[in-house]
Amino acid sequence: MTIEDLVDSGMDGLVSDLQTLIRQPSVSAKKVGLVECANLVASMMQKSGINSEVLYLDDRTVPPIVYGEVRSKSNPSKTILFYNHYDVQPEEPLDLWEDEPFSGKVKENQIFGRGSADDKGELITRIKAVEYFLKKTGDVPCNVKFMVEGEEEIGSLHVEQYLRKYKEKLACDGVIWEFGYVDAKDRPIISLGMKGLLYVELMARGPSRDAHSSLAVLIENPAWRLVSALKTLRDPSGRILVKDWYKEVRPFTKQELSVISREPFDDKEFKQEYGIKKFVNNARGVNVKKALVGMPTCNIAGFDSGYTGPGAKTVLPSQATVKIDFRLVPGMMPERQLERLKRHLKKHGFGDIEVKFIHGEAAARTPISNPFVKQVEQAASETFGDAIISVSSAGTGPMYSFVKVLKAPCISVGSTYMFARIHSPNEFARIDLLNKCTKCIGKIMEKFAKD
Amino acid sequence: MTIEDLVDSGMDGLVSDLQTLIRQPSVSAKKVGLVECANLVASMMQKSGINSEVLYLDDRTVPPIVYGEVRSKSNPSKTILFYNHYDVQPEEPLDLWEDEPFSGKVKENQIFGRGSADDKGELITRIKAVEYFLKKTGDVPCNVKFMVEGEEEIGSLHVEQYLRKYKEKLACDGVIWEFGYVDAKDRPIISLGMKGLLYVELMARGPSRDAHSSLAVLIENPAWRLVSALKTLRDPSGRILVKDWYKEVRPFTKQELSVISREPFDDKEFKQEYGIKKFVNNARGVNVKKALVGMPTCNIAGFDSGYTGPGAKTVLPSQATVKIDFRLVPGMMPERQLERLKRHLKKHGFGDIEVKFIHGEAAARTPISNPFVKQVEQAASETFGDAIISVSSAGTGPMYSFVKVLKAPCISVGSTYMFARIHSPNEFARIDLLNKCTKCIGKIMEKFAKD
Repeated sequence: MTIEDLVDSGMDGLVSDLQTLIRQPSVSAKKVGLVECANLVASMMQKSGINSEVLYLDDRTVPPIVYGEVRSKSNPSKTILFYNHYDVQPEEPLDLWEDEPFSGKVKENQIFGRGSADDKGELITRIKAVEYFLKKTGDVPCNVKFMVEGEEEIGSLHVEQYLRKYKEKLACDGVIWEFGYVDAKDRPIISLGMKGLLYVELMARGPSRDAHSSLAVLIENPAWRLVSALKTLRDPSGRILVKDWYKEVRPFTKQELSVISREPFDDKEFKQEYGIKKFVNNARGVNVKKALVGMPTCNIAGFDSGYTGPGAKTVLPSQATVKIDFRLVPGMMPERQLERLKRHLKKHGFGDIEVKFIHGEAAARTPISNPFVKQVEQAASETFGDAIISVSSAGTGPMYSFVKVLKAPCISVGSTYMFARIHSPNEFARIDLLNKCTKCIGKIMEKFAKD
Repeated sequence: MTIEDLVDSGMDGLVSDLQTLIRQPSVSAKKVGLVECANLVASMMQKSGINSEVLYLDDRTVPPIVYGEVRSKSNPSKTILFYNHYDVQPEEPLDLWEDEPFSGKVKENQIFGRGSADDKGELITRIKAVEYFLKKTGDVPCNVKFMVEGEEEIGSLHVEQYLRKYKEKLACDGVIWEFGYVDAKDRPIISLGMKGLLYVELMARGPSRDAHSSLAVLIENPAWRLVSALKTLRDPSGRILVKDWYKEVRPFTKQELSVISREPFDDKEFKQEYGIKKFVNNARGVNVKKALVGMPTCNIAGFDSGYTGPGAKTVLPSQATVKIDFRLVPGMMPERQLERLKRHLKKHGFGDIEVKFIHGEAAARTPISNPFVKQVEQAASETFGDAIISVSSAGTGPMYSFVKVLKAPCISVGSTYMFARIHSPNEFARIDLLNKCTKCIGKIMEKFAKD
């Protein structure tokens, strides 16, 4: 039997193991079931022949990581690391789920449940690929390591600490990232990078307590204050007006531009999916794709002030808060951008607005010329029939920490259908894609080991 | 015994009747206890010698009004109407109450509980004044009528319908309004008018569902859209930028200006109370008082979009909503201002923003020269030792409907200490002020009857 045959004949086991994982809730935002899920993953690895450990930081209140390892007898000189996470997004809103959020229910080609795609589905493809190698040959093509964390959905708060503490253990030559999307034409998107993020909360304070709105003749309204401040941050085209915001942004290389121009993107389908008529700044053609890969943003993720229930309440709120996430591209460091933001507000007369730093993450990209890219691309093309290279995901993850500490290239490839409703009710994983992805991971290991 | 003696010796009865009223919750926003409270008020009136009826509109789901009446034998040619309300604000937030919200607990000079001041305390002073006249003389100085409604705290939604339906029953020559504040120096504030209100909700729509904020490179964020629209409505000095917004605003008359300049207002105390350092547009001196009486406002009462919980969520919200209350002054009609607002948004490229009308109320003022003003002022001065005339309250009520339908002057005078925490936890009424106010109401009736 080939590895591919083993994957095909082992699908029932893969599905039932994935169901087991889904049925163990592990919501990092609520600190629910995290240690339980880490232990479950560790024992599942053991069952598959992977030596596993549950590792902690000195601060034992931080969710543990699961470390897994198989040393290759035939080729112990190369090491691949699978980075995944066992935590999931909160399951709310509950009333929109057709089945229980943690049901793991199978309907035809789909497995439903929170975490089915993000990220338990991806994790199971990595574990199973290793299991089948061991089953077939008693060996793996190269050394294999796993790092499965429990805080990805709340910003991977301690990944860098874990990387530093277990630097030797985690040393590797290449990292397969935790996610990977498959487009509407079943083509895997091989993503070579991630954007960075600066997440802040701005707060304007008004009267010491909510006041009757008739007093708006005298008392400054903090929501108005915040609206005024916000208007200085960004113009309607999306351009950020903070001084030096783009200073370290470098233009795309020729190679990046050529990859971007080849990347398929269906404007019409995207607009339909989100019910919109045009893109920000009326972007068209290649500019749409360039924006996804390399445009920094200033997004209002939340605005809260005063009375927000039904009907009327005549209140002058005592405070107004806005949450903003700025996406960053390579070169932009969150700490530096934060200082620029604070300076901007002061300079424009909004020194009274409090700026609370919530989260920061720098961007990272693996160069297209890195040999690991070709290996992954070939493996994906062979198993899925086609593959798309993306210079960078529009999203954010702790890739910069991996690159900085482990000094290894990171590449995303996986099984998640692009409309799989991750982070939303009725999240699902597609069984056909789990199958292909498991094969793809196997092939990546082989090609990576050979080169 | 004089009326004053009767008031003094009857304070125990007044307090226990007020406790009975407080202990009957009657929260219009939640439709709790309204009919029960109307019946309670009606029977309390009967007990005091006032003929009472509970009256409904054709739509019996609308909370009833309590109508009360005593015909004067000695002077049936003049009629005074007491307008009050038996409904109260919601009792939330519960955890900030020292005693139960509907306790009616007496501590020294204070009676605590939701509605103790607003408006059950005021109502009881009116009922008791009439009761003592009947007790002393078997008669009242003039005809007395009561209209006690049950929707004041949610915007007096059906007052005008009630006024029209029971126009003959409610016909009168002067109205004593439901509230009346007493300042920190125990001086009653006799208010001759109320501002109007236009309450709207503006909604901007973005993607058909919340999207991942990495897509902010392509998808317009409705919160940004709303921020842009808001910035066109008002400048930081408080000036409203909608075309013709101030068109019907007339300047103060000389008499109004003279009354305004005499009105005491403690800037320092006010700023301290609300923890603010300066007023809108840096107003000082008489301009502060002019603003309270006659400045139209555009107040953000609520802003809601996206994720507003703790920490970070990287979301691009599918909608953003802002609640705005515009205070209006005499001459400004809510419907016309609403049309101007809609035109403004369209003209500035925000035709996509939905404008939902929530509530409208025109302003009203009783001219200072009306003889009723002098009568109330004298009565208040005699009982409280001093009295302040205010051209208009900064707040809003259905006074315009009374003026339009009944064509009678309306004047506010009452017993509510200005820091009595109405609409807030630990609301209270001061027993000494209830005493003085009851005497004052008696004197008003006498003076009103004589002139």
